[in-house]
Amino acid sequence: GTNGMFTPSEKKKVIVLGGDGFCGWPTALYLSEIGHDVIIVDNLSRRAIDLELECDSLTPIQSMGERLKVWKQVSGKEIPFHFFDVAKSYELLRELIAREKPDAVVHFAEQRAAPYSMKGPYQKKYTIDNNVNGTHNLLCAIVESGLDVHVVHLGTMGVYGYGTSGGEIPEGYIDVTLPGGRESNILHPMSPGSVYHMTKCLDQLLFQFYQRNDELRITDLHQGIVWGTNTPWTKKDERLINRFDYDSDYGTVLNRFLMQAAMGYPLTVYGTGGQTRAFIHIEDTAKCIGLAIENPPKSGDRVEIFNQIAETHRVRDLAKIIADLTGCEVKSVNNPRKEAAENELEVSNKKFRSLGYEPISLGTGLLEEVTQVADKYKDRCDVDKIMPSSFWNKKIEEQCTDDV
Amino acid sequence: GTNGMFTPSEKKKVIVLGGDGFCGWPTALYLSEIGHDVIIVDNLSRRAIDLELECDSLTPIQSMGERLKVWKQVSGKEIPFHFFDVAKSYELLRELIAREKPDAVVHFAEQRAAPYSMKGPYQKKYTIDNNVNGTHNLLCAIVESGLDVHVVHLGTMGVYGYGTSGGEIPEGYIDVTLPGGRESNILHPMSPGSVYHMTKCLDQLLFQFYQRNDELRITDLHQGIVWGTNTPWTKKDERLINRFDYDSDYGTVLNRFLMQAAMGYPLTVYGTGGQTRAFIHIEDTAKCIGLAIENPPKSGDRVEIFNQIAETHRVRDLAKIIADLTGCEVKSVNNPRKEAAENELEVSNKKFRSLGYEPISLGTGLLEEVTQVADKYKDRCDVDKIMPSSFWNKKIEEQCTDDV
Ligand SMILES: NC(=O)c1ccc[n+]([C@@H]2O[C@H](COP(=O)([O-])OP(=O)(O)OC[C@H]3O[C@@H](n4cnc5c(N)ncnc54)[C@H](O)[C@@H]3O)[C@@H](O)[C@H]2O)c1
Ligand SMILES: NC(=O)c1ccc[n+]([C@@H]2O[C@H](COP(=O)([O-])OP(=O)(O)OC[C@H]3O[C@@H](n4cnc5c(N)ncnc54)[C@H](O)[C@@H]3O)[C@@H](O)[C@H]2O)c1
Repeated sequence: GTNGMFTPSEKKKVIVLGGDGFCGWPTALYLSEIGHDVIIVDNLSRRAIDLELECDSLTPIQSMGERLKVWKQVSGKEIPFHFFDVAKSYELLRELIAREKPDAVVHFAEQRAAPYSMKGPYQKKYTIDNNVNGTHNLLCAIVESGLDVHVVHLGTMGVYGYGTSGGEIPEGYIDVTLPGGRESNILHPMSPGSVYHMTKCLDQLLFQFYQRNDELRITDLHQGIVWGTNTPWTKKDERLINRFDYDSDYGTVLNRFLMQAAMGYPLTVYGTGGQTRAFIHIEDTAKCIGLAIENPPKSGDRVEIFNQIAETHRVRDLAKIIADLTGCEVKSVNNPRKEAAENELEVSNKKFRSLGYEPISLGTGLLEEVTQVADKYKDRCDVDKIMPSSFWNKKIEEQCTDDV
Repeated sequence: GTNGMFTPSEKKKVIVLGGDGFCGWPTALYLSEIGHDVIIVDNLSRRAIDLELECDSLTPIQSMGERLKVWKQVSGKEIPFHFFDVAKSYELLRELIAREKPDAVVHFAEQRAAPYSMKGPYQKKYTIDNNVNGTHNLLCAIVESGLDVHVVHLGTMGVYGYGTSGGEIPEGYIDVTLPGGRESNILHPMSPGSVYHMTKCLDQLLFQFYQRNDELRITDLHQGIVWGTNTPWTKKDERLINRFDYDSDYGTVLNRFLMQAAMGYPLTVYGTGGQTRAFIHIEDTAKCIGLAIENPPKSGDRVEIFNQIAETHRVRDLAKIIADLTGCEVKSVNNPRKEAAENELEVSNKKFRSLGYEPISLGTGLLEEVTQVADKYKDRCDVDKIMPSSFWNKKIEEQCTDDV
């Protein structure tokens, strides 16, 4: 079967900013596979952060040159790659857009780990500077080009906050009654839980403004936590393998659990594990972006917001699923984050479903596949990196380190 | 009389970021006058922007060295001055805070002109980068210092947007009823009308986050448009004179009208002049900041937001007041901004009033004084600089330039 893939109504030229990353690489391959002309931009900062954190992708990812050479071999398609910093090299971004006249730009190029963004002043400052200037440069360059380019941005469910949602979270906008009984539809109130999540809130305001002032066409995807590693496209050759982060800064919760299971360590749940989060499989990330590109807002339409999620789970329930699958234990540790110990979360994903999206859910089959990946490369794992090393504030740091 | 001045309950050490500017300089003198220990930080970027725009303060402002020497002569008080960029020299800011252990930091150090922020890509990018990184550096440095420093920030009424408010705008937060009848109190929805105003919205999110995560004590002053030039403290010696901007980028509307009147030119109203805006006199800016420093939020309290305004007026009514006073004409020109042609605006300023603030209003006495300032220095005026030179987008630029 096609796994829910579709043939685009027209071939588009798509620039993928951050196309070397965990989501960007499989998405670039998917867009190329379904027939779009893809161009990748990346400054390889994610690989550089691995040097700083003294860890590495569990999977042996290849250099961009090697990746693209192999993709050419297996698919016959060429993906040009440009190495530059979208937050710093405004002129290169502007020239690329003016020269290539893309139909769409998919923007993944941000520092995306909440714990990393809370590690210390350097990382807080870097995350703000990189993410806000990167997004603003993109919008500014499109305005300067005078072209009608559709921006597809990866945001996060975390902009809504992780308190108890008290009802299904709608897609971006919310109906409210203001004092005096006036009805209004406003951007969902923002409640970011880290500097990283905050930058996605700042991005939202940039999008609102540039849509209103310059009529840019923008789709903002409020994505859940991504799990998994490979997709049908990265599996075509082992040298196309996607990155798999398991460290406490970049490893998302499910991937961390799978790694602990593979190493025979207890799964470490923060606090009660009562946090409810939204999840999506990496293959669905790519497919949703394909759908977003296929269905741009019309010129003049407000910023289109999709909740890009498949399902929600409590962290302790996820741990239980993996523990049952692998026979390992679950252990609670002090929470390095400042967040509600327990929260409910209900999320609408009607818009993608109405476009034909049928989410992959956390079924045993796929989980087993990821377990095999973790197992296959486990000699590359430094298990010490799984325990928290970034703390939301000094008090929390003391509590967490007293514990040890 | 004391003009509403008060003696602080305790002497505080106050760092004034942006203390060379239009609001910062008279505020620094006021805080020094009422007994606080004041330290100024400024990178003189505002003076450098005058070089870029090829214009200058109408009033002959002195160098910082001269200003501070004269203040020492007339008041006996010393104000140390540090030249650095708060958005770029994080370490200098952090060291200054750690060494001086201030009770409060008043943060004026942002690019503050809406038209300048829309001039072109360089200015858009500079405004985002300078304002967001400056504010974030301050918050990050305070967290790193571990000190309990009260932040007083100058925000703008423009964060609420300049549509019709449909009721009195409360101070920062608004009661709403969410779907399902749930009552909630949220940050007032933001609707910035320029890149400059947007940075003040981004600042708001930074404040909300750092208050929640690190319990910083923060007061955000949503200030109206400031008019006037001198205060009782800058009048103590002509060499203490405050800056007076009349150009279309930095000159606020009332000061631009007063300049046109002094030059015998018609007052240029954008469109119908039906825009309603909030105003405050420069002397009240200083006094309100004194009150904010005197009344910090308690540790753990949410971000305190005051609307720092005296009164609201339609732009065409202001023009009429000045025309009546000076006998000059009023002329409509195409609006360089993208904004509602007409809007209503009602604003609460209860909090400052409850602390004893009695606003100076646009009475003829004070207006005459400013008219005299404009008149006295009118040979320093380049009248060409009063006409719009920044346009919100390309379409508007064409409309405005076709007109000429
Ligand atoms: N992974 C998740 O669970 C998840 C969940 C929700 C949203 N997202 C969002 O999706 C996007 C991609 O996430 P990811 O998991 O692939 O992260 P990643 O770190 O693996 O990929 C980001 C890529 O962008 C590049 N990059 C960063 N800053 C850049 C800059 N200034 N110039 C050029 N390139 C730059 C990095 O080198 C990296 O290759 C992010 O914006 C993230 O916030 C991810
Ligand atoms: N003037 C108004 O009508 C008005 C109205 C509402 C709010 N405000 C706010 O009040 C504050 C002060 O406004 P103003 O009218 O005095 O502006 P201004 O431009 O005259 O003063 C700002 C000062 O900050 C300095 N500065 C800017 N960036 C800096 C940096 N990175 N490092 C160090 N110094 C820096 C400038 O050199 C300047 O001296 C601004 O934040 C502005 O947004 C002003």
